[in-house]
Amino acid sequence: MRQVFVAGVGSTLFGEHHDSSITELAVNAVNAAIKDAQIDRNATGALYLGNFVGGQLTGQEVLAGLVADKARLPCVPSTKVEGACASGGIAFRHAWLSVAAGICDVAIAVGVEKMSHATTSQVTAALNCAMDMERDGASGLSFPGLFGLAYRMYESKYGEVRQKVSSVVVKNKQNGLSNPLAQMGATVSAIEVENSMLIADPLRLFDCCPISDGAAAAVLTSGAYITEHLHRTGYELPVEVLGSIQTRGVPFISGHSSLCSFQATVEAVQKIYDSTGIGPKDLDFVELHDCFSIAEILDSEDIGICPRGEGAHWAHEGRTAVGGEIPINPSGGLLAKGHPVGATGLGQVYEAVCQLRGNHPNQVRNASIGLTHNLGGTGVACVVNLLRRADA
Amino acid sequence: MRQVFVAGVGSTLFGEHHDSSITELAVNAVNAAIKDAQIDRNATGALYLGNFVGGQLTGQEVLAGLVADKARLPCVPSTKVEGACASGGIAFRHAWLSVAAGICDVAIAVGVEKMSHATTSQVTAALNCAMDMERDGASGLSFPGLFGLAYRMYESKYGEVRQKVSSVVVKNKQNGLSNPLAQMGATVSAIEVENSMLIADPLRLFDCCPISDGAAAAVLTSGAYITEHLHRTGYELPVEVLGSIQTRGVPFISGHSSLCSFQATVEAVQKIYDSTGIGPKDLDFVELHDCFSIAEILDSEDIGICPRGEGAHWAHEGRTAVGGEIPINPSGGLLAKGHPVGATGLGQVYEAVCQLRGNHPNQVRNASIGLTHNLGGTGVACVVNLLRRADA
Repeated sequence: MRQVFVAGVGSTLFGEHHDSSITELAVNAVNAAIKDAQIDRNATGALYLGNFVGGQLTGQEVLAGLVADKARLPCVPSTKVEGACASGGIAFRHAWLSVAAGICDVAIAVGVEKMSHATTSQVTAALNCAMDMERDGASGLSFPGLFGLAYRMYESKYGEVRQKVSSVVVKNKQNGLSNPLAQMGATVSAIEVENSMLIADPLRLFDCCPISDGAAAAVLTSGAYITEHLHRTGYELPVEVLGSIQTRGVPFISGHSSLCSFQATVEAVQKIYDSTGIGPKDLDFVELHDCFSIAEILDSEDIGICPRGEGAHWAHEGRTAVGGEIPINPSGGLLAKGHPVGATGLGQVYEAVCQLRGNHPNQVRNASIGLTHNLGGTGVACVVNLLRRADA
Repeated sequence: MRQVFVAGVGSTLFGEHHDSSITELAVNAVNAAIKDAQIDRNATGALYLGNFVGGQLTGQEVLAGLVADKARLPCVPSTKVEGACASGGIAFRHAWLSVAAGICDVAIAVGVEKMSHATTSQVTAALNCAMDMERDGASGLSFPGLFGLAYRMYESKYGEVRQKVSSVVVKNKQNGLSNPLAQMGATVSAIEVENSMLIADPLRLFDCCPISDGAAAAVLTSGAYITEHLHRTGYELPVEVLGSIQTRGVPFISGHSSLCSFQATVEAVQKIYDSTGIGPKDLDFVELHDCFSIAEILDSEDIGICPRGEGAHWAHEGRTAVGGEIPINPSGGLLAKGHPVGATGLGQVYEAVCQLRGNHPNQVRNASIGLTHNLGGTGVACVVNLLRRADA
């Protein structure tokens, strides 16, 4: 496998885009990433597009081909990939594989979703397609219901954590407030979180990520390409992709031995730590899949940032804040930045690249290694990426 | 790139499967392919699943992870890919890439669709997501309408061809009659074709492929794996994949300079001929994307089997029948075998492998090289594969 670099990233705002079509959102992100990378778009060898519910909510499939055409990319293989909320991560990993395996020198990954125009019931029905309808459909659970159960199981195992879970929300909302791309940054108190509307007991409104539109993209290149570009002036520092791992986990709820952990995450981080020799203690920050407040806690334990049962404590003690031991979701995460499903995995890469370049609005000091973590469905798919400053 | 072989194939019947879910269809095809290849399923390094409208018509996404779980494959990357009617071909190409680029030694590709339970209007609306809704939606065209236009353009360029086009239908229906997997094989006369119900002038019912359920799968392996297996007794002759090319074409109708040709096909075959040194005259048979009778004629010209304007003549003169110069769609093609959209590209590979093993129900004598051709949307994506008997 060859060295691979992120030469450029681009993103739309995450939020409500009533005046842009799903293809326009994706094209805007691709164009921004190409401009940032200062590459000739005709050098592109492959496009991967992550999207989850475009067919159901916008009536548009073949998005990879449409976006390639509208972004005036050459007629190269253009593939939509889908793995629910991990679709963007899967797109990134396939662009990485294309360059790492020597299939092409420049590959573009883009993720996109457009959801805010649909009714809540349409969105819920579409998102539920990420469950195993044969085995879980009859449970009547939606994703807030699933993570509400996980929250209850976590409390039955480790004791009551409401106040500590609220700290995750307070932190991510505050981080989001400084992130110009974020949909729902805010200064909120734990009391406000706990008094917000009940969604799926014990999850409150502020425990849940919003419904979002948006797109994010990355241009990945080989080392030779980077060497050539580094001679140019005004070129942003490239970021090396140390590894990109995709796993397949248990796709149905009752198949999990515990809802306090996702096997797909545990296997993915184990593989990426083993293959790179980098461990959780080496990470300067993490962008992880906090679709719900409790998810950030489960994920931070699965990733090995803190011991089992201590994720909530760590958040509450400020150890995961910017300036803490290991900042989690300095972007605001899904909770505050938003969760345009197919775009999220690439949005995380966007944030990580800004951190590693040293120009993030919530900059982590001396950030040289970051991890992104993107989880799909009830744990059916996971992608983790390790990124490093190229001069680190 | 390493040599890659198809070690095994599997398929369900193409037709109506009211008693099987979409995941069951795919799992049945995967299990059949694994049994045929005589591999240990735990050797699988990647799964690619091609599907188009599963979300819209069955309410089920994350199909790659679900099928991997139900087929008891290891927890390896399991990815759904989508490119409308070319989804199955794209899945095959990515499994091929995985092995060719040395990412893994065994990869499985499966394609699946379940449509027959839905109403015609639901199916039409879902299939129309393969069009560029922003640029073509207002035209009111469905795919029969598009290919009806192509038929008219072909006639305006080359003169009236109704009787010759009917020969394509008569041939494919007859081929399908001997294919036990085919949904709509029949002995029909040209008169019956021409008197069948008008669908989208000038296309008649028998000019159109049916609405189908089904799945097909292939196990792809490296040369080392094949060498090990060839020592076993009773092992089917492997088939070498000489090349697999995916292109991106014009995704909207008015973007085509002519509807008598699809640029995505022209580029794909040019690339595969250039990269392998094999030309259309070297082909012993072709399985191509005859979603409509006229499509077989356009495709056969794009693939270089016959000169421009002569596709209809060749069919009429029997030159594309089994026993003719270059048999086209000995399986019955989409017209007679059926078109479970996401499965079609892999169904073509299944048929080609049977031909190259010498055990096809419509066997082409001394078949040693075959081409499969899978086209998506209004020409937005195309995959062509060149397959060869491993002892040829």
